[in-house]
Amino acid sequence: MFSSIAIVGAGAIGTYYGARLARVGNDVRFLLRRDLEVVRREGLRVAEGARSFSLPKVGAFGAASEIGPVDLVIVTLKATANAELPRLLPPLLHHRTTVLTLQNGLGSEEQVAEVVGAGRVLGGLCFIATMRTAPGEVTCLHPGSITMGEFERPASDRTRALAALLNDAGIVCNVVDSLAEARWQKLVWNIPFNGLSIAAGGITTEKICGNPELAAQVRALMREVAAAAAALGYTIPEEFQCKQFDVTPPMGAYAPSSLVDYLAQRDVEVEPIWGEPLRRAQAAGVDTPRLAMLYAVLRQLTSMKRA
Amino acid sequence: MFSSIAIVGAGAIGTYYGARLARVGNDVRFLLRRDLEVVRREGLRVAEGARSFSLPKVGAFGAASEIGPVDLVIVTLKATANAELPRLLPPLLHHRTTVLTLQNGLGSEEQVAEVVGAGRVLGGLCFIATMRTAPGEVTCLHPGSITMGEFERPASDRTRALAALLNDAGIVCNVVDSLAEARWQKLVWNIPFNGLSIAAGGITTEKICGNPELAAQVRALMREVAAAAAALGYTIPEEFQCKQFDVTPPMGAYAPSSLVDYLAQRDVEVEPIWGEPLRRAQAAGVDTPRLAMLYAVLRQLTSMKRA
Repeated sequence: MFSSIAIVGAGAIGTYYGARLARVGNDVRFLLRRDLEVVRREGLRVAEGARSFSLPKVGAFGAASEIGPVDLVIVTLKATANAELPRLLPPLLHHRTTVLTLQNGLGSEEQVAEVVGAGRVLGGLCFIATMRTAPGEVTCLHPGSITMGEFERPASDRTRALAALLNDAGIVCNVVDSLAEARWQKLVWNIPFNGLSIAAGGITTEKICGNPELAAQVRALMREVAAAAAALGYTIPEEFQCKQFDVTPPMGAYAPSSLVDYLAQRDVEVEPIWGEPLRRAQAAGVDTPRLAMLYAVLRQLTSMKRA
Repeated sequence: MFSSIAIVGAGAIGTYYGARLARVGNDVRFLLRRDLEVVRREGLRVAEGARSFSLPKVGAFGAASEIGPVDLVIVTLKATANAELPRLLPPLLHHRTTVLTLQNGLGSEEQVAEVVGAGRVLGGLCFIATMRTAPGEVTCLHPGSITMGEFERPASDRTRALAALLNDAGIVCNVVDSLAEARWQKLVWNIPFNGLSIAAGGITTEKICGNPELAAQVRALMREVAAAAAALGYTIPEEFQCKQFDVTPPMGAYAPSSLVDYLAQRDVEVEPIWGEPLRRAQAAGVDTPRLAMLYAVLRQLTSMKRA
């Protein structure tokens, strides 16, 4: 069903999943920019302890038109680059191509659907710790899992076939019937921790949890996110919120991905993680004052970093 | 009635007011630390355009015990140094000494009253732009005015006598019957602008007003402050809030005093400007979510600066 695969956005996450899929024999074609020459010459390396491997020869391309139509497109671009989608996706489509976006926050399925049509689109949430450690090399600290679902439809045979493809490649994949609910659930953690880690001065989750006032703001933000989700029809029980908090202190001095981006002066995904949830909360008539303030502050902070 | 005056905390504001009072013949005794030797040797200079003047000889002291009991104590310490009050104030008191605190935010009258007794205490709000430009020298960009009142009492003959003393020295002074109401009114501006100027990355009021999301947060914070004040019995009409916003854009690239302190790595008055108002709002049962988050973030940011 998915005998050819394009990876659009071969950063740490795209490279890792693409390499795993290629390693078990799939025809994987990587759309590359920065590392194109190195990967053409030397292939890819995945450092993952006992699960490490190299792929001396991979399909490395500099343009979507060189890749051509494939059965499956996996979008792992930073969501801040989604203005590129109308240029990148069309050359990859035949009439039955499926597109899986693994981007953060809210709004990426809609943006992909605008280009390729809603029927092709699935979305997934990545719970993974991986980073680019050299040109053509990623290091995976924790492979985690993907939670995946159809865009605005319950899971189907296609969803399960795609999950099987990923599972066969050693990528744990869970299928859900409500992708939107899963995205709101993930925001319960991301909105407070990614946001306050930047807004409170570039601090890890350990510092946030260790500061009673900030910890209280985390919990209050979680309640705001849950209230917005509830108004949209997605239930996030209070025990879920508590658990999302409680798993954090044991993570130690963890730097959320948005903080890592911010400190490296890379684009921060402000719109998908804070802006779009805020707009949906407002459209549903839910007051989320802390989220509104956090969004305003993050917009300002990240616009200055880039200047 | 006030024939001897001690200035406790001879920073920019204390030096300016003390020098003006001394210039018209009052017996003013400055409690100094950093500039003690220079001021003993060279006196004080006030640079204020056509109103500039020098005082070659002033009463400069290194300890409260050397000053001894006076009729009037003016407290212009940073509120972050108020743990020093029990040491600094008692040597300055005789049985009829009046104490005027000109500190920012909420709580300083209470802290002074704890040391000297509530009956002696007045408070004032300084609307002034002045800074220390050299040892023994302050530059005043805008003399503004003082709004002054009794602590937990309406204005009295004493209040008016003190206002007359200040006015005679060229310091515009307005007397109010509700000092607490005046303090809450000033917080309508200080809480959002001083706070967001730090939390949004060290930006001036011009940048805050020019960013639509941040400007909306300013207005929302003003509403929270007004709601807390209302619950405590102080009315802050919506037109007042609007005016507090509207006067700001014409100020241009203004750096609020807390931002100046923060950028210079000096102590920021987090408790009087945000902490104490938040605690009073909470005690009155008023929800101020943006103030709560701003306070938590500022506590963290300022604790790191100091580390």
